[in-house]
Amino acid sequence: MTQWIDKIKCPQDLKQVPLEKLPEVAQEYRHFLIESVAKTGGHLGASLGALELSIALHYVLNSPEDKICWDVGHQAYVHKMITGRKDRMQTLRQPGGLSGFPAPWESPHDPFIVGHAGTAITQALGLAAARDLRQGSEKVVAVVGDGAMTAGLSYEALNSAGHLKKNMLIVLNDNEMSIAKNVGAMSRYLNRVITNPLYNRIRGEVEKQLKRFPRLKKFSNASLEGMKHLFVPGIIFEELGFRYFGPVDGHDVIGLVKTLRDILTLNTCSILHILTKKGKGCAFAEKDEEKGHGVGPFDVKTGEKIETVSSQEEASDVSYTRAFADALSKQARRNPKVVAITAAMPSGTGLLHFQKEFPERFFDVGIAEQHAVSFAGALARGGLKPVVAIYSSFLQRSHDSVMHDAALQRQGIVLGIDRAGLVGADGATHQGIFDMAYLGSVPGIVLASPVDEYEMEKMMELALSHPSVFAIRYPRAYIPKMFDAFPKKGFETGEGEVLFEGEDVTLLALGSMVEAACKARAFLEKEGVSARVVNMRFARPLDEQIILDSLQKTKILFTLEEHVATGGFGSKVLEFLEEKNIRHMPLKRLALPDEFIEHGAREAQLDEFGLSPEKIAASVLKELSRQTK
Amino acid sequence: MTQWIDKIKCPQDLKQVPLEKLPEVAQEYRHFLIESVAKTGGHLGASLGALELSIALHYVLNSPEDKICWDVGHQAYVHKMITGRKDRMQTLRQPGGLSGFPAPWESPHDPFIVGHAGTAITQALGLAAARDLRQGSEKVVAVVGDGAMTAGLSYEALNSAGHLKKNMLIVLNDNEMSIAKNVGAMSRYLNRVITNPLYNRIRGEVEKQLKRFPRLKKFSNASLEGMKHLFVPGIIFEELGFRYFGPVDGHDVIGLVKTLRDILTLNTCSILHILTKKGKGCAFAEKDEEKGHGVGPFDVKTGEKIETVSSQEEASDVSYTRAFADALSKQARRNPKVVAITAAMPSGTGLLHFQKEFPERFFDVGIAEQHAVSFAGALARGGLKPVVAIYSSFLQRSHDSVMHDAALQRQGIVLGIDRAGLVGADGATHQGIFDMAYLGSVPGIVLASPVDEYEMEKMMELALSHPSVFAIRYPRAYIPKMFDAFPKKGFETGEGEVLFEGEDVTLLALGSMVEAACKARAFLEKEGVSARVVNMRFARPLDEQIILDSLQKTKILFTLEEHVATGGFGSKVLEFLEEKNIRHMPLKRLALPDEFIEHGAREAQLDEFGLSPEKIAASVLKELSRQTK
Repeated sequence: MTQWIDKIKCPQDLKQVPLEKLPEVAQEYRHFLIESVAKTGGHLGASLGALELSIALHYVLNSPEDKICWDVGHQAYVHKMITGRKDRMQTLRQPGGLSGFPAPWESPHDPFIVGHAGTAITQALGLAAARDLRQGSEKVVAVVGDGAMTAGLSYEALNSAGHLKKNMLIVLNDNEMSIAKNVGAMSRYLNRVITNPLYNRIRGEVEKQLKRFPRLKKFSNASLEGMKHLFVPGIIFEELGFRYFGPVDGHDVIGLVKTLRDILTLNTCSILHILTKKGKGCAFAEKDEEKGHGVGPFDVKTGEKIETVSSQEEASDVSYTRAFADALSKQARRNPKVVAITAAMPSGTGLLHFQKEFPERFFDVGIAEQHAVSFAGALARGGLKPVVAIYSSFLQRSHDSVMHDAALQRQGIVLGIDRAGLVGADGATHQGIFDMAYLGSVPGIVLASPVDEYEMEKMMELALSHPSVFAIRYPRAYIPKMFDAFPKKGFETGEGEVLFEGEDVTLLALGSMVEAACKARAFLEKEGVSARVVNMRFARPLDEQIILDSLQKTKILFTLEEHVATGGFGSKVLEFLEEKNIRHMPLKRLALPDEFIEHGAREAQLDEFGLSPEKIAASVLKELSRQTK
Repeated sequence: MTQWIDKIKCPQDLKQVPLEKLPEVAQEYRHFLIESVAKTGGHLGASLGALELSIALHYVLNSPEDKICWDVGHQAYVHKMITGRKDRMQTLRQPGGLSGFPAPWESPHDPFIVGHAGTAITQALGLAAARDLRQGSEKVVAVVGDGAMTAGLSYEALNSAGHLKKNMLIVLNDNEMSIAKNVGAMSRYLNRVITNPLYNRIRGEVEKQLKRFPRLKKFSNASLEGMKHLFVPGIIFEELGFRYFGPVDGHDVIGLVKTLRDILTLNTCSILHILTKKGKGCAFAEKDEEKGHGVGPFDVKTGEKIETVSSQEEASDVSYTRAFADALSKQARRNPKVVAITAAMPSGTGLLHFQKEFPERFFDVGIAEQHAVSFAGALARGGLKPVVAIYSSFLQRSHDSVMHDAALQRQGIVLGIDRAGLVGADGATHQGIFDMAYLGSVPGIVLASPVDEYEMEKMMELALSHPSVFAIRYPRAYIPKMFDAFPKKGFETGEGEVLFEGEDVTLLALGSMVEAACKARAFLEKEGVSARVVNMRFARPLDEQIILDSLQKTKILFTLEEHVATGGFGSKVLEFLEEKNIRHMPLKRLALPDEFIEHGAREAQLDEFGLSPEKIAASVLKELSRQTK
């Protein structure tokens, strides 16, 4: 099974393979890829779909002189294998192992690290423009999934590329999917391109005209054939200034090589539209494409998930994502004005049930985070109660929409900020650790973090009656069981709760850090230190009375958050104390470092950065001993 | 000259005017508008271009039940006049007067406040979707300038609207200009639509086919006529799911009324493409469209600017914008790798000279702030030194691009953040008072603020050799003369400078606040208070030694910044002290309040919010007296 691919250590090795043998190479890579991802988990579907394309590109191009810009980069596993990383595929997305995305520090063949969709065209255009200024001659290729075509950034770049007309090639890898089934007019357009409706419309119209001249029928057929290439397909791209080629079969590796060679000799600004099947060659991934998008370890034959032991032993089996979706559905049953919006993540944000129950009140706008939030602001103006579920790191795309199209409009919208905190295997591009810093200065905003399902429900209720932006942030984790034991008290926006009284130190904890604070308290108790533990619930507005009380009752305060230190919850406590003219600030912030954090296991990384119960307790002890000196 | 418009206090009054008299109404509004804006200043060109459209829309629709969503809103002056605000037009953009943009708190006829481009389609779609859910029947119209069509948000919304197919109308107000001359493939496409090239291409191709059958020529012409509406114009919009109408003359008010009536009875998802002339009817504004975009008071006949007394009496005649552009050009002359990027603001950001001197190294990407920054990240990867000049409030659109496509890539790009601070007449949508909060947590970023041309030059030099994102923020103001008197010392990134030694209090001032701090010092001296004044230069990284020295030498520290308090420069000083385990923090932050700030005179607003020299001195005295109690 490995006649070819074991010998391929770099693209130059691949080029030694005779053209007619490339299908065998593809077959070997496909087999290897499925076996490999079955062990590690990862984004299988996209890479299977782009497998032949990856081979063809490296067969034709001279990477790393020539540049391949992958959009999102889920597609790039075969590219990684061809460029010398096949032997490390078993470390994919593992702590210290290969990144799940292209990464320049892994290989010179990866010009960019890319985890957000819609970046490839702008990046390829930048490389092409830079090349032309220094009079270089390398080829630049962007590989864009059709899902990324819904992103405004893709369009902005397309608009610019069609204008600048640099020598570059955009490969539109069209599998009719982004992560879920694609939505949007552009997607439908691409689908129509494939089935040539415009051509059919021309034909229909001309035939109508021809009815009066039946003898001319034969001529008209010839004429239509001659006109065909003018109209079908890809006229939008032609009109925007590109040479359009396709659609062609993206799994015919020999055909792809020939087509790419032809197009690249033209030295123009081109689009090649290829048709692929997400999950190609892996039965279950083809069948259930969203399931095959990002997978954990699985059985190669059935696709059944292989259970790995959860590192969160004391967790329930309910994720925060699920709790959010359930709380939303519950409110939606009570209030017909509640609507939900996702940006291509109906499954990832847990909204599939909502979609099924309230199809008319559910909007999947595609990978279009700006529009998702601006649209929500307008739905609110129209009298509805919109809830946008979005990942923390992708919400960066919506920043101006939150500010200008929701908060400034004095409109009540709810942001469900999923994956807020460390995200594990997806790594640096997906870490949701900056949201409180960039949302924290939005006038009128509420920043809430629940510890369990009860608080999620209550916060959703509060959020839906808030007159401005109300953000609920929650981590990629299961809900801890420990909060079942606490009595359930009602609370208002900005109200925290003292979970344990104590005399030496106060732990002001937010969201996912409350469990850690409770556990740290137990460690401290053994050391004879009495810790007050507060579930703050809100980073904005703060529960000012609880903070002032804690200052009175204990010698020092610690703030705990799963967020970078700069501009986070702890900083807001500092700001509050300064505003109150309190000059003695016995406060220590425990938070993530102000840097991009690579992929790794969430629990291990929390420990590494001092946010495990043990490390929190150790920090407290150290500070107390420092103070008594 | 005012037979009609004095009687029009609301849209219902307009409807009483006989259709054939509407051109007279238009003439009267045009005259009134020019006279009015000549006194107040404002965005004349866009509103002159949309004048007949405003009349026709209100003639046909029933606002405020029917909704008109203006994109940007510069176009909306005539809409304001028709909807009862004509008598207050002399207060336009004046403190306490009418906003330069639509504003819901001014009138129920304004569904949104809008100052950033590209929002109208998403807003109209939201209102239409909300209407359908509550089974309403009102009309919804978006009025979009063709400049706004380069914004990714417009495309995301267009993609969504073509998919949802709500009953709504998008009026594409095409004047071939955004603020400067439009750029981009879509703009060129629209231009081609006007001249029907596709139709011409069809004709050419068919004629080629027909050469073999000369006798069929007559038939072919008839056939082509029948096919014409299928292909020309607006095929992109048709392909995206819209009914396309146009292009029609946007200054023929009677024709517009008839066309709008026809389209609105179709109850479908439509685009009406109208052609207008920016500045129509005002000779100088037509001739120099960028000049006519946003104007101060002017002479009605010549367009010559009427000088108003500057409130900044002690300022030079060099603006920070000009100093930035000059510093950039100077570096570009030395280093061929330096390139500049603007998002449709070649004049506003001062880059016209750069464009003229280095046309090959200048990129205007249109209103596309995401692409502007992501593209810069890629140009940097390609070996260049890109400088993106952008307004603070528009940079919110680029947040993810700064984070994901520049900082995460470890690429050195320079952000010239113009209008950072209070912007005066443009008001809430344009206030540049949040940038340090949202950029402050970007790993590796530098946040610099120069006081004068010397520092601007030096910072540009440092920025171009920085390996990550380097942001230079500067206000919409002229450079104070007072710094000419200080000796010019070199400095490194993160290095502040003590301008005056003092013993009682330290004023840590950033950028525009340094002048105010120096003046406050003079006030304090009279009161017997000795103030140390520090020009911090950088909000990140901080000059830690200067802060620690100040803590030693004076009793209390004040931070001064033209930025909101939350997450700003002062908060970074607080964070630093906490990191250093300093528990006694005699620090007071003077900053803008955490709210949206309406339009007003910058100097007056700085005073209102406690940032004038007098108010700073008063705050210091108050705090000192509080401390001695």
